[in-house]
Amino acid sequence: MSARVSGSLRVVGLGPAGAEWRTPEAEQALERAEHVVGYHTYLARLTELPGATLHGSDNGDELARARHALELAQSGFRVVIVSGGDAGVFGMAAAVFEAIERGPASWRALDVSVLPGVTAMLAAAARLGAPLGNDFCALNLSDNLKPWATIERRLELAAEAGFVIALYNPASRARTEQLERAFELLRQHRTPSALVVFAQAIGRPAEALHVTTLAEADPARADMQTLILIGNHTTRSILRPAGPPWVYTPRRLDETP
Amino acid sequence: MSARVSGSLRVVGLGPAGAEWRTPEAEQALERAEHVVGYHTYLARLTELPGATLHGSDNGDELARARHALELAQSGFRVVIVSGGDAGVFGMAAAVFEAIERGPASWRALDVSVLPGVTAMLAAAARLGAPLGNDFCALNLSDNLKPWATIERRLELAAEAGFVIALYNPASRARTEQLERAFELLRQHRTPSALVVFAQAIGRPAEALHVTTLAEADPARADMQTLILIGNHTTRSILRPAGPPWVYTPRRLDETP
Repeated sequence: MSARVSGSLRVVGLGPAGAEWRTPEAEQALERAEHVVGYHTYLARLTELPGATLHGSDNGDELARARHALELAQSGFRVVIVSGGDAGVFGMAAAVFEAIERGPASWRALDVSVLPGVTAMLAAAARLGAPLGNDFCALNLSDNLKPWATIERRLELAAEAGFVIALYNPASRARTEQLERAFELLRQHRTPSALVVFAQAIGRPAEALHVTTLAEADPARADMQTLILIGNHTTRSILRPAGPPWVYTPRRLDETP
Repeated sequence: MSARVSGSLRVVGLGPAGAEWRTPEAEQALERAEHVVGYHTYLARLTELPGATLHGSDNGDELARARHALELAQSGFRVVIVSGGDAGVFGMAAAVFEAIERGPASWRALDVSVLPGVTAMLAAAARLGAPLGNDFCALNLSDNLKPWATIERRLELAAEAGFVIALYNPASRARTEQLERAFELLRQHRTPSALVVFAQAIGRPAEALHVTTLAEADPARADMQTLILIGNHTTRSILRPAGPPWVYTPRRLDETP
């Protein structure tokens, strides 16, 4: 396949699981791609793409992966770089623009665009009911790229503001202490009866939802596939005769349970 | 069409625009629906649904609309209630669970589920680059359902935390002062050079993006179809030879422009 004058890079969110939560726009970009770059776990979720060369890599150096994709686009290929969920939420989009900002001026002339997707907190929220029904925030709990002190300060202020809190990347194999410290901190700023949800592998075969309280939340439940939701003081559950309770946050703050 | 023993209610986010950003799961629910309930502006975005009766209503009483959908499901029909974007983010999902909580016990036995979608801030962010590349929050600026003092407090704390801020419902025909007050407040807590984006009707024919700064932001630009994004102190633009600048927030807080 020879390189052409004008390549492109599409930064694509695959959604949290399979094709049922993937946009037609994302599917079309994948079908047209000549090269697909991404973390191998995400590439493994794709159905066969006979027209494309797959470039799987380990999790880790997102910037190197972004540069690889940009170089392929620069060479004239139609390139897709993938993320789970939405690429703009703790996914590959920011890494791609960091690479462009630091890279050769010619990369700024490339045809680059981001295609939105369903991010994990929306899928987890949908499974539960409507826990994001009032104002909320999304925090990346990894301190690989920002100081832990900043994360603590953001957690405190988010709790004080009464935001429902979504925690992305609460734990990894190498990183298990952060969630414990986050729960300890939040217990000082939010009622111990606040609902906490561990949402694992939503939409995938290993899907599991565990609803508990801030007082009882066990950080050891979290793994690399877990998203954590922490309700505000109005978030409550609705028991039902069959099935797990729904969890929702009323739109009004004065809503009494 | 006669009522059956067991109806269902699917709370469906249509995405921010047309079918290219709508999940296959949402499309399938619409195709199977016998009744579709929703704000008439959203119903107008649907392609023909020959098997369904459409129940359009004015914006406003979401709780009444939710009850109507629940009553139809209770009568045995396959019912869909729609929102723009994701139903769980300032959409119909919270209203449905409020209605269930206050309604007859039999509603808790209904087959109700929420199907996730692409919410407006993800689509706006994708068009811009990666403005949500670091921690962020989403606030509904309408004070129809919560005190303005709470909104002000949340804005202050979000600014202090360094969150990128997405403002939903910044203005309506009846409500234009709030965004002006929000900008005034944020100017006291965030650098005047912070980037502000007015994202209008993203993905729809009237799509428009306007990038400015907190110092210069004119609240009169916002209408009912606008989402506002306010960058943190690291959010920056990348100029390019053709096309509007990209806007992104680095993953690292110490990233120097």
